[in-house]
Amino acid sequence: MNPFNFNLKDYIESRRAQINRALTHYLPPHAGQAEILAAMNHSLHAGGKRLRPILCIAACEIVGGNGDEVLPACCAIEMVHTYSLIHDDLPAMDDDQLRRGQPTCHVAFGEATAILAGDALVTRAFQLLAGHALTRPGHDQPKWLRVMQLIGKAAGYEGMIEGQMQDIRSEGRRLSLEQLERLHRLKTGAMITASVVSGAEIGNANPEQKAALTDYADSIGLAFQVQDDILNIEGDPAKLGKNIGTDQQRHKNTYPALLGLTPAKSRAAMLKAQALRALDIFDTKTEPLREIATYIIERKR
Amino acid sequence: MNPFNFNLKDYIESRRAQINRALTHYLPPHAGQAEILAAMNHSLHAGGKRLRPILCIAACEIVGGNGDEVLPACCAIEMVHTYSLIHDDLPAMDDDQLRRGQPTCHVAFGEATAILAGDALVTRAFQLLAGHALTRPGHDQPKWLRVMQLIGKAAGYEGMIEGQMQDIRSEGRRLSLEQLERLHRLKTGAMITASVVSGAEIGNANPEQKAALTDYADSIGLAFQVQDDILNIEGDPAKLGKNIGTDQQRHKNTYPALLGLTPAKSRAAMLKAQALRALDIFDTKTEPLREIATYIIERKR
Repeated sequence: MNPFNFNLKDYIESRRAQINRALTHYLPPHAGQAEILAAMNHSLHAGGKRLRPILCIAACEIVGGNGDEVLPACCAIEMVHTYSLIHDDLPAMDDDQLRRGQPTCHVAFGEATAILAGDALVTRAFQLLAGHALTRPGHDQPKWLRVMQLIGKAAGYEGMIEGQMQDIRSEGRRLSLEQLERLHRLKTGAMITASVVSGAEIGNANPEQKAALTDYADSIGLAFQVQDDILNIEGDPAKLGKNIGTDQQRHKNTYPALLGLTPAKSRAAMLKAQALRALDIFDTKTEPLREIATYIIERKR
Repeated sequence: MNPFNFNLKDYIESRRAQINRALTHYLPPHAGQAEILAAMNHSLHAGGKRLRPILCIAACEIVGGNGDEVLPACCAIEMVHTYSLIHDDLPAMDDDQLRRGQPTCHVAFGEATAILAGDALVTRAFQLLAGHALTRPGHDQPKWLRVMQLIGKAAGYEGMIEGQMQDIRSEGRRLSLEQLERLHRLKTGAMITASVVSGAEIGNANPEQKAALTDYADSIGLAFQVQDDILNIEGDPAKLGKNIGTDQQRHKNTYPALLGLTPAKSRAAMLKAQALRALDIFDTKTEPLREIATYIIERKR
């Protein structure tokens, strides 16, 4: 089943360490009086899975690229993801006190600082990408510009932010399955797809490879959300680092609420199968993306 | 005094119209259900002076560049400026209800949407710069990458956001003049300087020209703030579109509070003189930047 004895845990651990080192390179730890850096780092190093940057590396590698080259994109993507969590947790949004078992940014630093820490992270993301592109030879710069464009579009008013708007507007309103999937494709799917496609872009993927990886990412992006909804029902609060049952209390639109728990699990399995099928065009280095697809619907946190 | 009969009002009006057209190009008006676009456009087209983009154009022209070429930078700068105003006005920050005589974004659209509208504007700014750079020939792309870097640094945790942090932390605490100037150099000065230097960059300025324009921008950036403080004491609320006397009520650190009103006016005049001196190295097309320096300390809004 696993001819090279690929071990996802080792792969993820080593990639995660690499990403964390790169993040420290691009955002120095809290220095002296700069409270803003403390707030940014609090959320950036709060135990995130680094799923998006790991996907970026694995996508670069599956098309034959060197995974080390995508680290600046990994950092930008993780900063954008972290900023979105900080702002989502604010009292005016989801008003969450805990994330990954730790106080959310506004609980630890106050609301004004949390808003600014999020602002500073998204700004730093683009600044570091521009700075990195300037260190590359001229023929490489368009690739990095396309990565900036991909991330900007996925994170902006046509992507993640529109998804968050739809999420806010759907509170207390019953969505159809189609509406729910549209919301999730925007809110979480767009940035997951941008992570995968950015890695493919930097790895010089051809159009067929990019299309296959886009299909893969679309499927695991939705699967990720279905599993999130399932974990909110039957997960272990200690492992999740947050309470369960909150979706039902808030009458949130979720896959289990719309479909029932067992059909939601079938949907997740189907999405995983779709994701794996999309990888069929690749011959080598497919293990990380295959295993991540499995991990996404089997994860406990 | 004005050999070419330069008319600042005409210059500003025609540039402002050009910038507004470009903004509409880069951010379409509210379409259908996209409430986020309505919120973004509400603040983007709320009667802003467009000072920063006009500075960007004038700086490009003074070094011999074509002012039309900088319009994408103008739009990005104005989007970043607008996002910072939206977030500054939030209840967790300055809690302002009115700006330029109109309801602030969170008053018109609610707090969650205002946070997201700010987020979407800063994201769109970088996305449009990357998209524009991709339409340029390869040898032009590093210039646009440097503009992204300039704006990112000026807007981020080393610039505007750190200034806003210091502003929040200084409430109820007496600052020295040195501390106050440091705060303003970060909070408003950094983005004004980035606007001017971005224009110079795109106009292919040489290092001497860039240094002179940086000096110019540093001086008018501070002068702008001094005049802001003065207008909060003796301005006309109808022209300003906001109440006066609020700084004193809030015991804010201002130039008049620290220095007295008359010395604050002398400080503004000195900064203007410094700005004009910095322009001495230029022979032609100096009128717009000269007149803007005068306008900044004589303006009524």
